[in-house]
Amino acid sequence: MILTFIGTAGSGKTTLTAKFGQYLEKEGHNVAYINLDTGVKSLPYTPHVDVREMITVEQLMKSGLGPNGAIVKSYDILTPHAKEYANEISKLEEEFDYVLIDTPGQMESFLFHDFGSNLMENLREPLVVYLFDPNILKNLYDYCFVRFFALMIDLRLSATTIPALNKIDIIKNELEYYKKYLDNLEYLSSRLRLDPSTQGYLAYKLCSFLPDVISSVRLLYLSAISGAGFEELETVAYEHYCTCGDLT
Amino acid sequence: MILTFIGTAGSGKTTLTAKFGQYLEKEGHNVAYINLDTGVKSLPYTPHVDVREMITVEQLMKSGLGPNGAIVKSYDILTPHAKEYANEISKLEEEFDYVLIDTPGQMESFLFHDFGSNLMENLREPLVVYLFDPNILKNLYDYCFVRFFALMIDLRLSATTIPALNKIDIIKNELEYYKKYLDNLEYLSSRLRLDPSTQGYLAYKLCSFLPDVISSVRLLYLSAISGAGFEELETVAYEHYCTCGDLT
Repeated sequence: MILTFIGTAGSGKTTLTAKFGQYLEKEGHNVAYINLDTGVKSLPYTPHVDVREMITVEQLMKSGLGPNGAIVKSYDILTPHAKEYANEISKLEEEFDYVLIDTPGQMESFLFHDFGSNLMENLREPLVVYLFDPNILKNLYDYCFVRFFALMIDLRLSATTIPALNKIDIIKNELEYYKKYLDNLEYLSSRLRLDPSTQGYLAYKLCSFLPDVISSVRLLYLSAISGAGFEELETVAYEHYCTCGDLT
Repeated sequence: MILTFIGTAGSGKTTLTAKFGQYLEKEGHNVAYINLDTGVKSLPYTPHVDVREMITVEQLMKSGLGPNGAIVKSYDILTPHAKEYANEISKLEEEFDYVLIDTPGQMESFLFHDFGSNLMENLREPLVVYLFDPNILKNLYDYCFVRFFALMIDLRLSATTIPALNKIDIIKNELEYYKKYLDNLEYLSSRLRLDPSTQGYLAYKLCSFLPDVISSVRLLYLSAISGAGFEELETVAYEHYCTCGDLT
């Protein structure tokens, strides 16, 4: 089973990859780790595949590029090898119970760059977990935004994508508040309907449309610190690979 | 009038800011330039506001951070000053005909970080131009993706967002092919409908829904090299600020 963690820089992909891997190992599974981040300095797991063996952002910056240019260039260099990486990952999938893919630090290096789409299209039914941080949920529009963003990833990478609120340890008692809006789209829509602004109307329309396209994907609530949601993540992965994608 | 250029690293924001600014100046307008990229090494315009005066990615990397961490940290440092920057930009708007905002190299530093939303919510009716590269349009789903992505920016930043295919000089004779799918959502939908895959169905549903929410926003086709689309961009900005957002 291949699990791909996608999210913006700082959303906790690398820590979660390590901690969820440790959890799976304790459960008796064998786990392979893939690092696709050319910019990461050190990893809390030992990768079986590491793109930094081919190129790092640091090397490119030493040759004179700025950080943005170096990040883009590193994936330009990796792109012709995307299929080889996909083959390596597919081979590991045969040997290991789980293959955990830790994607580029900057989400756009994966989502908007050929490297990401070329790699993903060469994997068999990849499952994506889209990690977002409680900090980006400031107003009701943002709840609609993250639900839709998971769809955008699905559309771009042709991969079933499960949205996951990560770092729930930092919100503690407010989790139920977040869940109320994230799990219950009808409730979110009804609240957005009361917003008279142009933005409120857009969010309302988008949110009301969502059930037409995402009825079968549930949300996850995760914490790498407490291990919350790990069991459910394991179940979701199992169901995706073993019962053909019914994630209701 | 404030124009904000948003797009992934390498989508041509900085070059377009410079070239469109030169065009406006030749037309007799006075133009202010804002650089919000903490990672850029050199600029092809002289900025009136430059976030690098407060912090740069390079400084943070010297203190030991990796490129991703340094990019995030630089915007963490800028966030408490987002409102001051918005005030500075608003003052420039009174003095200058046009204020062109060149946003962070990595789009997610603006779209997913408080810095971006805090800054934008303190500007009066900001207009956003979402730049995407012909290279990301590989299959029909991608056409649907970019149209929807502009909506995501609109939703997240509460700002009218116009999608713009940039670098049209590199596609030359194929421009009509791109336009056929980007301009005519009905045609795109009818093609997607023939796709029997799960992905095709998702793209078809999303694409068919689009006219419900974006009927009034047209697309731009730009080139910083040839100056194509500059006149139309100027018109769109004028219409946004002077006729209250009717961009049909």
